[in-house]
Amino acid sequence: MKDIIEIGNQNKIDDFLSKVKGRRPLFICVLGNTETAKIPGISAAGANPEITDTTPAADMEYLLFSKCKSIDGVPVTPDGIPTPALITKASLDLAEIPILIAVGGLRVLPKTPYIEFGGNPGGNISKGQAVKNAIISYENAKIFGENLGKFVDYLVIGESIAGGTTTALGVLSAMGIDAMDKISSSLPINPIELKIKIVNSGLDSKNLKKGDLRDKPFEAIETLGDPMQPVFTGLVIGAAKKIPVILAGGTQMTAILALINSIEPKILENVAIGTTRWIISDEKTDLKGILDQINPNIPILAANLNFRQMKFDGLKAYEQGIVKEGVGAGGSAIACILSTNRKITMKEIHHKIEDDYRKITGL
Amino acid sequence: MKDIIEIGNQNKIDDFLSKVKGRRPLFICVLGNTETAKIPGISAAGANPEITDTTPAADMEYLLFSKCKSIDGVPVTPDGIPTPALITKASLDLAEIPILIAVGGLRVLPKTPYIEFGGNPGGNISKGQAVKNAIISYENAKIFGENLGKFVDYLVIGESIAGGTTTALGVLSAMGIDAMDKISSSLPINPIELKIKIVNSGLDSKNLKKGDLRDKPFEAIETLGDPMQPVFTGLVIGAAKKIPVILAGGTQMTAILALINSIEPKILENVAIGTTRWIISDEKTDLKGILDQINPNIPILAANLNFRQMKFDGLKAYEQGIVKEGVGAGGSAIACILSTNRKITMKEIHHKIEDDYRKITGL
Repeated sequence: MKDIIEIGNQNKIDDFLSKVKGRRPLFICVLGNTETAKIPGISAAGANPEITDTTPAADMEYLLFSKCKSIDGVPVTPDGIPTPALITKASLDLAEIPILIAVGGLRVLPKTPYIEFGGNPGGNISKGQAVKNAIISYENAKIFGENLGKFVDYLVIGESIAGGTTTALGVLSAMGIDAMDKISSSLPINPIELKIKIVNSGLDSKNLKKGDLRDKPFEAIETLGDPMQPVFTGLVIGAAKKIPVILAGGTQMTAILALINSIEPKILENVAIGTTRWIISDEKTDLKGILDQINPNIPILAANLNFRQMKFDGLKAYEQGIVKEGVGAGGSAIACILSTNRKITMKEIHHKIEDDYRKITGL
Repeated sequence: MKDIIEIGNQNKIDDFLSKVKGRRPLFICVLGNTETAKIPGISAAGANPEITDTTPAADMEYLLFSKCKSIDGVPVTPDGIPTPALITKASLDLAEIPILIAVGGLRVLPKTPYIEFGGNPGGNISKGQAVKNAIISYENAKIFGENLGKFVDYLVIGESIAGGTTTALGVLSAMGIDAMDKISSSLPINPIELKIKIVNSGLDSKNLKKGDLRDKPFEAIETLGDPMQPVFTGLVIGAAKKIPVILAGGTQMTAILALINSIEPKILENVAIGTTRWIISDEKTDLKGILDQINPNIPILAANLNFRQMKFDGLKAYEQGIVKEGVGAGGSAIACILSTNRKITMKEIHHKIEDDYRKITGL
């Protein structure tokens, strides 16, 4: 059983792996809040819609301090399944990978150090008013990424934003990429009809048809996206001129790649997607099918996470397709394994996740 | 003529230099505003007292974008002498040294990416109300510094805060270090009587005598310091466990060293002061005399900057003892020279400063 599953052109995968093998990564998590997440039934990133605003902050507090400050316990789904930040933290801790926290736009700021890029929380995309002045936070993130490119070996960038697959679908649709039947969800039953309704409502509100914003990436974000996206995109475009970047996430990453492809497509030669087995093995999700419409050469790496043997039901539930990805979980596990030249294996990551879960819950 | 002047125990200097030689630095500038700067006659870091709030923001915009966004031109003294950020930028650009911007507490935020640590702008120390909850921004900065220590070769940390020598005198006095006749100033005639009056007023307001807060570093900051100090101190303590740190500044740095000495003195084995010739050759300033009361083994490195031959009066004025240091100017020049294994010399830095000044002023 391979710890890292490889999907795509094997030469491109080998090229990418040779560039990052044994080198020191920096993990960045880009945070956002969007009103879109509060539409009932859209997100599992929080026990109820209102608390989703606090989820990114709490995730980051847990990553940095092993303890949330903004909430008791850790973020959970409405069913009580714990945040994927557990996977991220276990992976980063095992390989001593440093962490930076980047704010795209938040209503609830983390009680941690964090980087500001001048963004604001996002609106409800069903009204076509998603993000204000995306170019400002994009430009700030780009110059920050350029600075990181001067001294970091490579970046692993993840996200924490509730509602993020819906806003990803918004941007993809606006840019003419067919993802309506391919996008993932943090919920075990993907509320895809609701997502499509929200996106179509947003398009209609601006008299737009799918694909109308193909060459207008910032307008796509501002109309149907979220505030995480311009910062994430800027960081990648700034840094990947010089250093490799792993986009750590599920189908949300394809929206970032579509934006990059529209702004500076050459950058795509220096990136890969790092995700989880739960994303690539989900029958209702087609990450590769979206990616192929943007650039079929981008490698997909998937951490072979498997919680079937876990002692705790809260973790076993991941095998039911709940959560699947988030907070850069898959990319962090991959970076942990690669940066230690596979000295740390998935087995140890699983073990640490179980230990950490025990500590949090007191089970 | 040596490009870097060395002061202190030669073994300690050689040790420190061997640790940083040829390695890749990261420059961080820590920003703050304090109401103390608005006391008339106290600071030259801005054309008038009110504008001093904007100076740190404008300095950072210039460093990152070669152009200020918050003001026209660049920050100047009341006499029109330009900001030392000119020296910093020339040095960092020549050696391609990356930049992070850290906010201690600001009224005017820079239009750049920046790191937040949960601090607030500072009050007027003559009332003994300088900083609120210094421990929060200190702890956030410390964990951030720990993360940097995992992947950066070494740090060069500078500051931009108007009124900073007065708040440094405040902290030093509260901690029992005799600096009343040793502290520097950005003004050609040091308003030392005024500074002493302000500090004594602050001590009196809390019924404190000099030295009463010797073992209470956070209380010293909160009573007589500024919001730059806890973040600067936290960054050094977090990072210098693992990597060397150059404290880039003049006599303000002794307040940081006194704080570190009180919190975690072992850290002082891995730090040096990086400053300018203008500081060490100023007859009214006694950097070494303050330092010797804290730890005589800390190396002082001074960039042998000399503007006598500059074509422009605005730059020549530095030889009159105006400005002297700030925005990590001296430490940046030193890092430029050391990180390039002295391939870049002071001559080239001087030349680039002159070129950049021409571009800014159109002269």
